[in-house]
Amino acid sequence: MWTYDNAPVSKMAQKYGFKATQDWLDKARLSSVRLAQGCSASFVSPDGLIMTNHHCVASCVQQLSTKEKDYHADGFYARTAEEEKKCPDLEANQLSEIKDVTKEVNAATKGLTGGALNDARKAAFAKLEKGCATSDDVRCDVVTLYSGGLYHLYKYQRYQDVRLVFAPEFRIAFFGGDPDNFMFPRYDLDVSFIRAYTKGQPLKTPNHFGWSQAGASTGGLTFVSGHPGSTRRLISTPMLEYERDFFLPHRLLFLSEYRGMLTQFSTRGAEQARIALDDLFSIENSLKAFKGQRETLVDKKFFAMKVSEDRELRKKVESDPKLKARFGTLWKEAEELEPKKRARILPYRYIEMGVGFQSDLFHMARSLFRLPAEMEKANEKRLKEFADARLPELRAQLLSPAPIYKELELEKLSWSLTKLREDLGADHPFVRKFFGKRSPREIAQGAIEGSKLDSMDVRRQLLDGGKTAVAASTDPMLALAKEIDVDARAIRKQFEDEIESAETRIGELRGQALFAVYGTSMAPDATFTLRLSYGAVKGWTRADGVKISPFTIIGGAFERATGRDPFQLPQSWLDAKDKLNLQIPMNFVTTNDIIGGNSGSPMFNQNREIVGLIFDGNIESLGGAYGFDESNNRAVGVHSSALIEALDKIYGAKRILQELRKH
Amino acid sequence: MWTYDNAPVSKMAQKYGFKATQDWLDKARLSSVRLAQGCSASFVSPDGLIMTNHHCVASCVQQLSTKEKDYHADGFYARTAEEEKKCPDLEANQLSEIKDVTKEVNAATKGLTGGALNDARKAAFAKLEKGCATSDDVRCDVVTLYSGGLYHLYKYQRYQDVRLVFAPEFRIAFFGGDPDNFMFPRYDLDVSFIRAYTKGQPLKTPNHFGWSQAGASTGGLTFVSGHPGSTRRLISTPMLEYERDFFLPHRLLFLSEYRGMLTQFSTRGAEQARIALDDLFSIENSLKAFKGQRETLVDKKFFAMKVSEDRELRKKVESDPKLKARFGTLWKEAEELEPKKRARILPYRYIEMGVGFQSDLFHMARSLFRLPAEMEKANEKRLKEFADARLPELRAQLLSPAPIYKELELEKLSWSLTKLREDLGADHPFVRKFFGKRSPREIAQGAIEGSKLDSMDVRRQLLDGGKTAVAASTDPMLALAKEIDVDARAIRKQFEDEIESAETRIGELRGQALFAVYGTSMAPDATFTLRLSYGAVKGWTRADGVKISPFTIIGGAFERATGRDPFQLPQSWLDAKDKLNLQIPMNFVTTNDIIGGNSGSPMFNQNREIVGLIFDGNIESLGGAYGFDESNNRAVGVHSSALIEALDKIYGAKRILQELRKH
Repeated sequence: MWTYDNAPVSKMAQKYGFKATQDWLDKARLSSVRLAQGCSASFVSPDGLIMTNHHCVASCVQQLSTKEKDYHADGFYARTAEEEKKCPDLEANQLSEIKDVTKEVNAATKGLTGGALNDARKAAFAKLEKGCATSDDVRCDVVTLYSGGLYHLYKYQRYQDVRLVFAPEFRIAFFGGDPDNFMFPRYDLDVSFIRAYTKGQPLKTPNHFGWSQAGASTGGLTFVSGHPGSTRRLISTPMLEYERDFFLPHRLLFLSEYRGMLTQFSTRGAEQARIALDDLFSIENSLKAFKGQRETLVDKKFFAMKVSEDRELRKKVESDPKLKARFGTLWKEAEELEPKKRARILPYRYIEMGVGFQSDLFHMARSLFRLPAEMEKANEKRLKEFADARLPELRAQLLSPAPIYKELELEKLSWSLTKLREDLGADHPFVRKFFGKRSPREIAQGAIEGSKLDSMDVRRQLLDGGKTAVAASTDPMLALAKEIDVDARAIRKQFEDEIESAETRIGELRGQALFAVYGTSMAPDATFTLRLSYGAVKGWTRADGVKISPFTIIGGAFERATGRDPFQLPQSWLDAKDKLNLQIPMNFVTTNDIIGGNSGSPMFNQNREIVGLIFDGNIESLGGAYGFDESNNRAVGVHSSALIEALDKIYGAKRILQELRKH
Repeated sequence: MWTYDNAPVSKMAQKYGFKATQDWLDKARLSSVRLAQGCSASFVSPDGLIMTNHHCVASCVQQLSTKEKDYHADGFYARTAEEEKKCPDLEANQLSEIKDVTKEVNAATKGLTGGALNDARKAAFAKLEKGCATSDDVRCDVVTLYSGGLYHLYKYQRYQDVRLVFAPEFRIAFFGGDPDNFMFPRYDLDVSFIRAYTKGQPLKTPNHFGWSQAGASTGGLTFVSGHPGSTRRLISTPMLEYERDFFLPHRLLFLSEYRGMLTQFSTRGAEQARIALDDLFSIENSLKAFKGQRETLVDKKFFAMKVSEDRELRKKVESDPKLKARFGTLWKEAEELEPKKRARILPYRYIEMGVGFQSDLFHMARSLFRLPAEMEKANEKRLKEFADARLPELRAQLLSPAPIYKELELEKLSWSLTKLREDLGADHPFVRKFFGKRSPREIAQGAIEGSKLDSMDVRRQLLDGGKTAVAASTDPMLALAKEIDVDARAIRKQFEDEIESAETRIGELRGQALFAVYGTSMAPDATFTLRLSYGAVKGWTRADGVKISPFTIIGGAFERATGRDPFQLPQSWLDAKDKLNLQIPMNFVTTNDIIGGNSGSPMFNQNREIVGLIFDGNIESLGGAYGFDESNNRAVGVHSSALIEALDKIYGAKRILQELRKH
């Protein structure tokens, strides 16, 4: 997971005999795409055509669907340019520049601690980002690498007009469903094509990946350029214990119950199943990922390895008087911080991060309510999501035409409020004050039933009307956001000043210590920024001794099909079976180091030609959040040949095929 | 948690200056009652009146209720003897004799291992139990103490005609609901009265507890005589790790999702909420209990203490050549067994223990299907639940008139089959064979919709008709039980022979080692058999420093009430408020060592007079599964004065009050 400014050129040359030039790296970077909502993608034609996973645009597909026309079930293909449909919420980013701003940030925070440190850092970020983002088409993020050992300013071209070109049926995109998720052998066509537009016209993208004729083959060198979301490979032992013993179990229990609730909600009827699908998918996916992470951390051998890595760093620091003077107290501080974090995290998550308020209406209401108040402050003083550099994204979210389903909102909000009360306890001061004599369902009903925030026009009026309009509104969801605002802000401030600030400071010093001892020979933890990974097509041996070969073939999908979800093939596949070459590779695995956020990443060869499309990792790779093990961690992709075969013989998507052949 | 044959007479004398006589012990034992389904209780009048918790008879209350008459919501009171209603499934046991049979069991299993050891032990148990249970009114269980350091034969009088006399409304029995469960301060009237009958007449019970005028008071000595279900205080470190890292997390995730599913099912309507309530209560209760257990085990200090206890035992064994020769390899064996157990436990639980088949119809079908085949074998060779000594209980279960709700059955079975498939994996041989092309819901629908096993008459015909009737039946649920039977039996046999047998052997040797080193100065782990605990009324200091005083008062319930579930008081309480003495103690805590299974236990003073009724433990006490900490583990009870006040002024239950005053 290497950053492009510190690409592992010599490591790649040493291991695979391939020497990447700066031009090669620049072109790979500019052909890579980030989907701001949390996925990766790539330009695959000169006309702004973007390839990513189906599950990365599933929200868009669901938002464009109605009770009458369900693109999730039936798939979507724009036969002409005019039929390409705008995705309500998608934002695509292209990384144009990386700048080191470590000095600027450190100068701004020098000597500070607690709330003052936090405020100063936030102000420095906002200032740097604003100075860089010269227009709404440019997005700039300060990125914290090595937990603050380095700060880099990432500058992106921002594309907010992104349209859906092609998506297959959910049944083949996610064939095998949750049971097969993170598993291999696998048979998914988890692909979609979208297109970036600018000023109403398809974006010109001279930098884009080509298409390999042969596709991936055993042993072949594969590159992945994408945006791994988050790893915690460099954190201290007490923080690992916090995740293992407290945080992951907490999240797992929350998500399990949420899943049970939504699964049962889906039995109310076909329409309810349709509207719950997107949430359910994302919950099940997280659930499985967190399970894998927890299982890795409770593996005694793995955890002992992490502890010994930490001890080695400590020893090196303590044996050097200069390092010891700078970093010697870090371990004690981390140990002392951990129980404090446990005590504070749940109120912060439930009340301020909105975990107890699972409702799109609520989150829009909160943004609408807070925006005018925040805009009265200087850019550097605002809550970070209201900084100038973030406003285009916020505006797009608030004005999204995506439908909101009150029936689902009611169940989600009632349930999550119940969880809030349960996990904070009926006697928590906020719980007593907020619930009073009201039940969770009563609060949810009161806020949702009469709310008009499900109308985009109403939201636009409030957004444009600013403080006066918001103050004059009697919308009950807005009232709910207002009701908890003072407490939520106080809880956030306390968490940021007492916990986050200390954690960042410890992380920064630890990052500097790591950096002082090991330099950049160790890649920084993932931060949902562009990283390059190199690897090869290769199977692995499971813990139970079974050897897994690296490829599956299209015919395997037909063998695995039962005719019942989640093992049901779409009709289009059944109809096309005779025309298909069943021997063509379908999915495959590589040794590339990836993690959640890498979904949709291109897999390409030395000539920067697409050989596959990342859509998953194997179950063993989930532990990659805490450490990469090349012996059994595998990235899972759709083979480029299966993509061509399906576009051609099943979907007759000639327009896309022609475009992929253009250079 | 002392057995009555090894009562802590000198410890009690030393700590509290009370010397229990044998007569005192015998009378306390004979006044104690076990409810075979998993609770404790006590005789409180000479005419078979039994006091226990509301939640111990909640199933009965729900089974006696209908859509039209909901005793769960409205409470139940039999104003005359004729109005007492038979509980479909309740069985009450009174412990009449304890006999040491260690020699007999050890002689039967000497020198054996694996399947042979298992078979021999099972046969020895069945033989001893059959020899003891001379009629259906007598129940005999061989009890494994110190994991097999001792075997005792417990002989009970068995009462299968148990009738409901009084139950308050669910809202006050479980006031505060899940949020307040395992919490204190608390305001619950978790009581019910039932009555044992024999030959159609109330049972004569000369041995019964009296009633204290004063009730419990601060510092007062309290005894609890009840049936703690299960503790694992003496197990080895690898088994503790198995529970902490694998088994408890697995159960927690299962139950969380189950809870979400049933909570959402309950939103379908009032009737659905009613029929799901009993399952939901038990799931939420287990969930909170397991959470507490897991949290205790991940407490680093606690776990280190357990590890050091284990090390001490090992050191003592290894420093004595004779002990070393007998027990020296135990630790290595335990360590080697643990991963094997992990690998085998899930198929065993899901398929044979029925975790994947959450359906009352299925469990009855399986018993009906297996019974004739098992009855063809000699008593000692049968699956243990079909041994002669167990048949009366099995018969009562199969002929229970309790209603079965197919709507709920369908959701539970569909969901649990989905879990089975998920946790074993879509490629597990049983999963492939059993599901074939069918979806979980399809299997559940097929088995439930056409089944007639919800009719007690149909079950009786199959039971009486034996092998021929079962073979001739085309009932689809019976067909499902038959379909998986060969595989399920094979999985059970493998688990019992390879895992359980080794675990018991290790446990036995460990028990003998403990016994050799410490003697009976350490109470054996709980086994849902009668135990005596002594303690005192005493508050505690929470981890966050808050001091909790030991009593609440009736008035507190009115203060805590919000008018919304689960903090809604029943109308009867609101109506009676002016008549009540609000200063009377409501609930209180003591230092008695209890655990799940103790629910419904009498709390009594040195004169064997009731001073309270156990219904819960505080959250800290949940760790008691692994070790008792007198500094903060507390038993929670209803005060005897609150019981009298409510029976008198709210429920006008004169008949019960008069009976409680009889001696």
